[in-house]
Amino acid sequence: MSGAPAPGCPLCDGVGGTLVWQGQRCRVIRADEAGYPAFYRVVWQAHVAEWTDLTLADRAHCLDVVAAVETALRAHLGPDKINLASLGNMVPHLHWHVVARFAWDRHFPAPVWAAAQRAANVERESAVAARLPALEAELAQSLARLV
Amino acid sequence: MSGAPAPGCPLCDGVGGTLVWQGQRCRVIRADEAGYPAFYRVVWQAHVAEWTDLTLADRAHCLDVVAAVETALRAHLGPDKINLASLGNMVPHLHWHVVARFAWDRHFPAPVWAAAQRAANVERESAVAARLPALEAELAQSLARLV
Repeated sequence: MSGAPAPGCPLCDGVGGTLVWQGQRCRVIRADEAGYPAFYRVVWQAHVAEWTDLTLADRAHCLDVVAAVETALRAHLGPDKINLASLGNMVPHLHWHVVARFAWDRHFPAPVWAAAQRAANVERESAVAARLPALEAELAQSLARLV
Repeated sequence: MSGAPAPGCPLCDGVGGTLVWQGQRCRVIRADEAGYPAFYRVVWQAHVAEWTDLTLADRAHCLDVVAAVETALRAHLGPDKINLASLGNMVPHLHWHVVARFAWDRHFPAPVWAAAQRAANVERESAVAARLPALEAELAQSLARLV
């Protein structure tokens, strides 16, 4: 598992979203997922497919970053649930989804990948989005201390 | 976050599937998910909702068990992808899904929670299921060494 950039991989070719923080081994991006303003991804910088392709130290570091994102979402947004996932069936470049879920969001309690259960609540989505600059500033500071 | 059993929680009241291994802090079960013979869950024994409700040591232990399951699935089944997720919107008792995904399975490359894309391949599902006894025996041995 060399980790060399893979031709045509969108997470090798680009950032993949709005960059929140970048370290040597991974980065945090805010995804642009309709209806989910607080949808973040922790993207491993090297092109590896599976979490267990990483060394033990790298796995721990990757999950420390995931935990920092989860902690920031809980502190700033008070979500009803945090959803974590590493899937990668379409883009087999290791990335962890970290999503703040609310009982009023379009899919709750189903996963965001299931069929929507209700219309978007644009007002509440906007209220969440308004909190993200402060959240991301604090998150970037906490991640800078981590490495 | 006391972790005391929660009334009505299906993962407090029962095992939640076929027990593969049980430790002091978590257990591994095989779920009975139609079309997914190799669908496992790592269930935290105490009733906590979020991964970051755990201490740092417990988070690491929980993910060591997840990694052991992922490693066993890769070694025995050669899946096209491993899917990991901690969602818990419906059952907010910490559990990690660890699923072996194949390009021929009903939802690939979509998540298993999305709409199915094709009919079940019963023959290939049976071939996967036939490998599980050996996989689970080896997994239980490796987990016994972990703790």
